[in-house]
Amino acid sequence: MKQVEVGIIMGSSSDSPIMRQAIEVLKKFDIGYEFNVVSAHRSPQRMFDYAASAEERGLKIIIAGAGGAAHLPGMVAAITTLPVIGVPIKSSNSLDGWDSLLSIVQMPGDIPVATVSVNGARNAGLLAVQILATSNAELRNKLAEMKKENNEKVEKMNETLDRS
Amino acid sequence: MKQVEVGIIMGSSSDSPIMRQAIEVLKKFDIGYEFNVVSAHRSPQRMFDYAASAEERGLKIIIAGAGGAAHLPGMVAAITTLPVIGVPIKSSNSLDGWDSLLSIVQMPGDIPVATVSVNGARNAGLLAVQILATSNAELRNKLAEMKKENNEKVEKMNETLDRS
Amino acid sequence: MKQVEVGIIMGSSSDSPIMRQAIEVLKKFDIGYEFNVVSAHRSPQRMFDYAASAEERGLKIIIAGAGGAAHLPGMVAAITTLPVIGVPIKSSNSLDGWDSLLSIVQMPGDIPVATVSVNGARNAGLLAVQILATSNAELRNKLAEMKKENNEKVEKMNETLDRS
Amino acid sequence: MKQVEVGIIMGSSSDSPIMRQAIEVLKKFDIGYEFNVVSAHRSPQRMFDYAASAEERGLKIIIAGAGGAAHLPGMVAAITTLPVIGVPIKSSNSLDGWDSLLSIVQMPGDIPVATVSVNGARNAGLLAVQILATSNAELRNKLAEMKKENNEKVEKMNETLDRS
Amino acid sequence: MKQVEVGIIMGSSSDSPIMRQAIEVLKKFDIGYEFNVVSAHRSPQRMFDYAASAEERGLKIIIAGAGGAAHLPGMVAAITTLPVIGVPIKSSNSLDGWDSLLSIVQMPGDIPVATVSVNGARNAGLLAVQILATSNAELRNKLAEMKKENNEKVEKMNETLDRS
Amino acid sequence: MKQVEVGIIMGSSSDSPIMRQAIEVLKKFDIGYEFNVVSAHRSPQRMFDYAASAEERGLKIIIAGAGGAAHLPGMVAAITTLPVIGVPIKSSNSLDGWDSLLSIVQMPGDIPVATVSVNGARNAGLLAVQILATSNAELRNKLAEMKKENNEKVEKMNETLDRS
Amino acid sequence: MKQVEVGIIMGSSSDSPIMRQAIEVLKKFDIGYEFNVVSAHRSPQRMFDYAASAEERGLKIIIAGAGGAAHLPGMVAAITTLPVIGVPIKSSNSLDGWDSLLSIVQMPGDIPVATVSVNGARNAGLLAVQILATSNAELRNKLAEMKKENNEKVEKMNETLDRS
Amino acid sequence: MKQVEVGIIMGSSSDSPIMRQAIEVLKKFDIGYEFNVVSAHRSPQRMFDYAASAEERGLKIIIAGAGGAAHLPGMVAAITTLPVIGVPIKSSNSLDGWDSLLSIVQMPGDIPVATVSVNGARNAGLLAVQILATSNAELRNKLAEMKKENNEKVEKMNETLDRS
Repeated sequence: MKQVEVGIIMGSSSDSPIMRQAIEVLKKFDIGYEFNVVSAHRSPQRMFDYAASAEERGLKIIIAGAGGAAHLPGMVAAITTLPVIGVPIKSSNSLDGWDSLLSIVQMPGDIPVATVSVNGARNAGLLAVQILATSNAELRNKLAEMKKENNEKVEKMNETLDRS
Repeated sequence: MKQVEVGIIMGSSSDSPIMRQAIEVLKKFDIGYEFNVVSAHRSPQRMFDYAASAEERGLKIIIAGAGGAAHLPGMVAAITTLPVIGVPIKSSNSLDGWDSLLSIVQMPGDIPVATVSVNGARNAGLLAVQILATSNAELRNKLAEMKKENNEKVEKMNETLDRS
Repeated sequence: MKQVEVGIIMGSSSDSPIMRQAIEVLKKFDIGYEFNVVSAHRSPQRMFDYAASAEERGLKIIIAGAGGAAHLPGMVAAITTLPVIGVPIKSSNSLDGWDSLLSIVQMPGDIPVATVSVNGARNAGLLAVQILATSNAELRNKLAEMKKENNEKVEKMNETLDRS
Repeated sequence: MKQVEVGIIMGSSSDSPIMRQAIEVLKKFDIGYEFNVVSAHRSPQRMFDYAASAEERGLKIIIAGAGGAAHLPGMVAAITTLPVIGVPIKSSNSLDGWDSLLSIVQMPGDIPVATVSVNGARNAGLLAVQILATSNAELRNKLAEMKKENNEKVEKMNETLDRS
Repeated sequence: MKQVEVGIIMGSSSDSPIMRQAIEVLKKFDIGYEFNVVSAHRSPQRMFDYAASAEERGLKIIIAGAGGAAHLPGMVAAITTLPVIGVPIKSSNSLDGWDSLLSIVQMPGDIPVATVSVNGARNAGLLAVQILATSNAELRNKLAEMKKENNEKVEKMNETLDRS
Repeated sequence: MKQVEVGIIMGSSSDSPIMRQAIEVLKKFDIGYEFNVVSAHRSPQRMFDYAASAEERGLKIIIAGAGGAAHLPGMVAAITTLPVIGVPIKSSNSLDGWDSLLSIVQMPGDIPVATVSVNGARNAGLLAVQILATSNAELRNKLAEMKKENNEKVEKMNETLDRS
Repeated sequence: MKQVEVGIIMGSSSDSPIMRQAIEVLKKFDIGYEFNVVSAHRSPQRMFDYAASAEERGLKIIIAGAGGAAHLPGMVAAITTLPVIGVPIKSSNSLDGWDSLLSIVQMPGDIPVATVSVNGARNAGLLAVQILATSNAELRNKLAEMKKENNEKVEKMNETLDRS
Repeated sequence: MKQVEVGIIMGSSSDSPIMRQAIEVLKKFDIGYEFNVVSAHRSPQRMFDYAASAEERGLKIIIAGAGGAAHLPGMVAAITTLPVIGVPIKSSNSLDGWDSLLSIVQMPGDIPVATVSVNGARNAGLLAVQILATSNAELRNKLAEMKKENNEKVEKMNETLDRS
């Protein structure tokens, strides 16, 4: 069984359609993950325990998504020393994602959260791979391969583009 | 010795000049308070303990000020059932207070934070008095008195206004 | 018959679907409420009378929702000494709720409005309960119970989460 | 003695340096004015009385300046049928004037406030003159004269401009 | 035939559904109006001529609606000395109305535009009536009547409100 | 004497310190320019004449700077078919430049304004050179030379950078 | 075969519906163009080569559209000395176009991007024509003709406007 | 000599006071770094070469700071597969940092930039340490130690806080 290296958490199961985009990337790179609802606001003790035990449970990175007054990524980063990647969610209750973004990215000194774009869970997954790749040559090769594929996608778009 | 009914906390001692405006109001109304630095990000366990023990220590209201990605008011509200009043601080690192405001006011369902204006610690103190006054007729009288004084201040402004 | 302790008002009946979420919470906690349209702009005298008589009619808290240039919560707070909870409404005429939020939260010194999130009437109701609970142990117990239920909801979300 | 046709009010004497710019314009056009502090929040009854009696006291226009959650112009417009000109003040407590502007301009249907630019008291005074001029040919002539002067100022700027 | 006192203009016929709300008000008050497309950007000479001739054609007020980089109200105000009421339109090409609002309200000194809310053409019409009423007692009476009706509408909303 | 190819205009001589940065660039590339105050709001006829005669006077490009509700660039573009470069000015009366930027860049279809950054008059000058260079090989060479110099500036910054 | 003078590029084929509006204009003016997907982020080398070779391939102007953190226009402008016109795209992932606009317009000194409105590809095409017309009298005539047509469209709108 | 693991780059030496805060953190954790000016806009080839060679030169992480239309972090991330940490700089030419933040954080899918707060170079340095610590137990211990120190700083703030 694969070692779980990345913990993906979110404030509510309603964030799941966005956050699953991180899972897709991790699966593509064959990286072990766990996926849970951990609400800073509705289950603060669970959040506390999750963050405090993350390192000893073998996690290397935590990806946390939240919307509105999004406190989950920052609070987890306050408790663990693992790198925390924050995904601002543009939920129906948020001010078009502005509140989610600012609540996550504007962390005070000494407590960084690696913030990606609004709803950017796919990039959160990829950033986790890049972090793991700093000590894993195979992953670096796969990332280089993916860059080539991205470039090829652009070529293909050009082949079929209507220029009339 | 006076019973401590209001706990005032802030993320850093640099928020003290703003937050002391809440103290001034509480002292005017002769209400017991405590005043502490409790950082959600730098001292999460202390924050957790503070919020979890607040009710049993006799606190009735918590006023929490924070800037930037301001998580302190919302996290305290997640842990205690006491009413939490949030003061968005316009710190040098904040985006002119917009991040502080949105991080505090845009709380998800079931976890309210009673948010006042940016740097509005004075109003936070007064809101605490209003809340205590819901079960204290003497405070209600004092509040009514204060409204009269405010009205008189307007009268006095008019007496000295340069109208030329 | 139950004592009416919370007055819920709004600028127009079109705000009713949002504001009724406050009623749901008050009913759950078995708290007496009244519910009225009181427009600061279309019925200023009514607003004035409502606010001026609120305390003597036995109200302890007022919840006021309004959108756009939302003056109702602040004006009621100017007239009464009761705590006023403001709900910014994201109406079709508002600038996505930004105008509603700023018009309510940015009150000047001495006139606080306890502002909740945009469309956050549910939290307004809950904040009213928290305020009443400062002098009511039974309500405090119910609030603690509700926190447990919220936590359990997170557990249940995890039980059914698709992790594949 | 000149008939007072324009009432200028503001929420606090601290708004006086801005609001006096309206007075300058009215004096230039020799229009009678009155100037008072009328706070919607600190003196709501005074505000109410001021607005309700304005028409019978002979006022034709009200200019109202306020900052932050600026309710004065809109509330006066709710009470009187006179045209109300609103001046958003960029006070030290405001969010750079955004809150003042939105609180004044985003009025609901049936209650217009003629809003000018942030700190635009000079234009508020001039708009008052334009309104009075709709029934006063002499004022119309003076306004036409002023337009010519403005144009000449541009000419003079060009005469002294460093073009090297 | 009725004297035309109010000129309503807009940048494009696509703004017509909004701007016709001003017509409804003027018709209710039995005020003569004209209604035209006058684009500052596509027909600058027409705009120029319209504004320059407005006063001598007997107009007393101009209502101008525009969206995006909305220059029509301000340019007309630059040319005529009549009071100009600006209506920011939230068109599909605008940034949710923010560009329209700022382009209209933030006029420089000496060139006021009486700005109403985004899409607030109804209020623009009513403001025109209020301006005309400064020299017309009958209109003042009608405006007072309308305020009563507005108040009654609030009463009726309360009669049918679901309070369960 | 050099042919004047670029007309630089601004709404007020107070914009001169910013707009002169465009002159510096044009002088460096030895391009003839003229520099004038042409206010859309205070001298609309002058603005109209300036724009309408620009092409026949031999101008090839117009650079227009303005702040607040900045109508000058767009109005000139409405009148002439020459390319118009707009410079949003962050004046003391503007909302930190947001109003200036949106008033200039958000032009409707068929009337483009080539907008540069807030206070970006230097880039406006350079863009004018680039436009002239589309039919002038010597200018193209000079522009290529300037790119090299910019690159060398980066090299020099690195030579003196404190890396300790 | 027509000489290709304008290169139109975009970050993804999903931007094609917007960017094709530039093509329509260029075809109307009978100007040779090329149209390609050139992503700064997914095909940086292709972007680099495209920009570096543009001038020698005979291009005179580049129109670049991109959304979100839109780097394509600015990076192309960093590499070529041709004038670059930037089109901010309001894509589904963007913050309503605000990020696209600021990422394109706020370029540093010495690297201008001629920015048009959000989704303003039509104006980008027209601006390209205006630039080419600085050295092409026939194009200038056509542009003058187009201005007349725009004016006539306003006339026709007036003929069919419902004024009742 | 220490292995260089972190490359710190910035668009201009004027960003140096902010970016040196990242160096302070790296030095505290005894991590090898290099520090250079690499402008995406003024030295695009240098930027390209820097990013393309980073991995083979042994770098594991790149920290890139930039202001305004900040393209450096995103472009470097487009070229290398190393994790890139972006620092939005609030430069004098930026719109209070909003443009810098959005230009960096709102990256499209497949090209993440780990964004920290505006001017948050200290946190960028710390995030780099956290990333390296995913494969370095000694660094993990040091990070845990730092968290304790942060907590102690809060204790010390409380010891000296003026509570009167």
